[in-house]
Amino acid sequence: MRVYDVIEAKKNKRVLTEKEIRFFIGKVADASATDGQIAAFCMAVLLNGMTDEECFYLTDAMVKSGQVASRPATDKIFADKHSTGGVSDSTTLILVPVLASLGICCAKYSGRGLGHTGGTLDKLESFKGFRTDLTAEEFSRQVEKIGAAVSGQTQETVPADKRMYAVRDVTATIDSIPLIASSVMSKKLASFADILLLDVKYGDGAFMKTGRDADKLAKLMVSIGTAAGRKTAAAITCMDYPLGDCIGCNAEVAEAIRVLKGEKQNALSKVSFAHCAKILEMAKGINKEESERLVMQSISSGAALKKFEEIICAQGGDASPLYDASLLPMAENIFEVTAQKDGYLTVSALSLGSACAMLGGGRQREGDDIDHTVGIVLDKRQGDFVRQGERLATVFYNRKSEDAFELVRKAFTFSEKKVKNRPLIRGFVEGGERSI
Amino acid sequence: MRVYDVIEAKKNKRVLTEKEIRFFIGKVADASATDGQIAAFCMAVLLNGMTDEECFYLTDAMVKSGQVASRPATDKIFADKHSTGGVSDSTTLILVPVLASLGICCAKYSGRGLGHTGGTLDKLESFKGFRTDLTAEEFSRQVEKIGAAVSGQTQETVPADKRMYAVRDVTATIDSIPLIASSVMSKKLASFADILLLDVKYGDGAFMKTGRDADKLAKLMVSIGTAAGRKTAAAITCMDYPLGDCIGCNAEVAEAIRVLKGEKQNALSKVSFAHCAKILEMAKGINKEESERLVMQSISSGAALKKFEEIICAQGGDASPLYDASLLPMAENIFEVTAQKDGYLTVSALSLGSACAMLGGGRQREGDDIDHTVGIVLDKRQGDFVRQGERLATVFYNRKSEDAFELVRKAFTFSEKKVKNRPLIRGFVEGGERSI
Repeated sequence: MRVYDVIEAKKNKRVLTEKEIRFFIGKVADASATDGQIAAFCMAVLLNGMTDEECFYLTDAMVKSGQVASRPATDKIFADKHSTGGVSDSTTLILVPVLASLGICCAKYSGRGLGHTGGTLDKLESFKGFRTDLTAEEFSRQVEKIGAAVSGQTQETVPADKRMYAVRDVTATIDSIPLIASSVMSKKLASFADILLLDVKYGDGAFMKTGRDADKLAKLMVSIGTAAGRKTAAAITCMDYPLGDCIGCNAEVAEAIRVLKGEKQNALSKVSFAHCAKILEMAKGINKEESERLVMQSISSGAALKKFEEIICAQGGDASPLYDASLLPMAENIFEVTAQKDGYLTVSALSLGSACAMLGGGRQREGDDIDHTVGIVLDKRQGDFVRQGERLATVFYNRKSEDAFELVRKAFTFSEKKVKNRPLIRGFVEGGERSI
Repeated sequence: MRVYDVIEAKKNKRVLTEKEIRFFIGKVADASATDGQIAAFCMAVLLNGMTDEECFYLTDAMVKSGQVASRPATDKIFADKHSTGGVSDSTTLILVPVLASLGICCAKYSGRGLGHTGGTLDKLESFKGFRTDLTAEEFSRQVEKIGAAVSGQTQETVPADKRMYAVRDVTATIDSIPLIASSVMSKKLASFADILLLDVKYGDGAFMKTGRDADKLAKLMVSIGTAAGRKTAAAITCMDYPLGDCIGCNAEVAEAIRVLKGEKQNALSKVSFAHCAKILEMAKGINKEESERLVMQSISSGAALKKFEEIICAQGGDASPLYDASLLPMAENIFEVTAQKDGYLTVSALSLGSACAMLGGGRQREGDDIDHTVGIVLDKRQGDFVRQGERLATVFYNRKSEDAFELVRKAFTFSEKKVKNRPLIRGFVEGGERSI
């Protein structure tokens, strides 16, 4: 068998065997497949598709291309959540402390923001000194001790995915549902979570523009997770408009803190709490109402906030901003956007996320620095009726960019008719028996 | 515009603009497109296709990525012929001297054999001292002086094609009609031929397995040549079975000499003479009968053989084998294949070509050395009725290989019914007015 033959088979629309897939990924991992061969394979998969079974073997082969994390010495249940990427989506900052405060361990590997989407690691670095580069040993020890850790993934994890993703990124082969599913799931399955919740975004600001595509991706990821022996579910949530009211690291962290304190109810809190409740249902075998009650108790009792403090401190961060929001400063220059006319408001997540990145609050290219003080704070939300001249949002910036301001202006549109929002939570997909 | 955007467009089945294609090929030529990007583009073209117009711009952009040969100082008409690759196909060795003897200049850049197919340069090196590495200046001067030269293409010619082909070769993206057409035609259009004849092979031993695919490729190449302002035609000829009766460098050269001397009539001579006549028709505006008469005259008068001698000498080769076939020795070891039973014979070009290569008479990998004395000489041909025990072929070898012998044995099959050969010359495609 040669790498060539596997590409040829997929090019000819043949279903690949487990052996062929493992062989190919082995050659990706040991660097004997060329970048060209990886690109040709990915384009053939993108255009000719893969069955769920092929996709499971692809994922499993990628997991096995690297080190699989060893489970810390505890009997507790481990949960993990993964979002396909959104704007003003700080659910991880809320979900991890809530679940950990309720005895569900969260050993969470997170990523950084890119383009219009934000990243958890960047946000956590709003706490001065917070370390996102824990060694495997430090990570494991912290989880054993306080039930939670959030860090960057180590180099050795899923090297085949790392290589494939780097090639896909420049060859227009990102937007393939089987390739997205296997990439996400390989990283999730390389950790030891018993329970996986995937938050698949759909809409304007998401990879999946339609609910239908998001459903497909969700089902495929759940089937892979289930086949790998994990309790897996997926939420399909809307990313037409920003999830929270703040975009940019410091602003989003401040908002997450308010949610953890029970001071803020919005789409962000709704989705975060729904995720927590779904994981609790799966972990404890209790019903939705009971799960929701536990989540609210964690918030109202201050247990969640307390747990967040523990996590920040354990990772070397300064937790004072939890109790003094002024320690999460915003950039000094302000640009206010006001309504051009009366009407029902539509707010584009994609435009606002991109504008924040252009102003330095996000990342245009991997490796770029991020300005934590840059941000956009919304006064009005999707669906609100606004009057001409009312303030819609405030942009905080250090480095002026007319292009970014223009993008913010264009993020808001006005309609005479009431805006019909697509559902915030389109639904959940849950895994049943192992099917592969 | 980015390389990424061009790949993305083709992935989404969009017809590319001239500007996009020229941009992409520019980036291939200046090495700023990665191998992965080239592979993804080629796979997208292979699976989603290209219009004739896209294919013309692709070809033209590739031609312009390198140096275009300057026309020697003569008013004569230049002709070029290209075969898509076959087994026992020495038409170039016959066609060039015939045409040059009739006043049609042949400035021919040829290639080497690979896999089961042979190459003109390898065969010409059967003449001791023959140089296939003429400089552009030497090449041009020789054409001016004697009306013909056959050499390898210089490094600088069509660098974009060189790069793309190297990537396609390992990424299962060779067998795309638009990519084959643009690769072949870019090399042809980089020379100054006024008349182009393309010999598109179809059948078991050809890239194009079916006549229908060969027709497509022929039409596309003719449309590209015509759009580029050259008189272009294509022959579609059968490659189910070897064209001549000999496979291997020395054996094929000896056979070509016999055809040039008028001592041998077979499929090889038929196709070679038909090609010559077609080019003469296009060059001189005369009819088929008149063209065929001129070709036969060139053979019977000895003019073609004399011209071949001139070419060999001009390129530093020893022409004595033209008059003494023993100077083209065959390997000393002999393996004879006899008929397993009575029946009508089928002879596989692919198997025999591959067997010859396995024995060292061809090339498994680019850069391999070739043993010129290795070869297979057929006693019987496709369609012949043979009796059990009759000799079918003799294999000449230095390095024994049971696998190769087995392949030779299996190249012959016997049937009770008369074999219905597909037509040797399926037809010609001729270019009309420039259509792009």
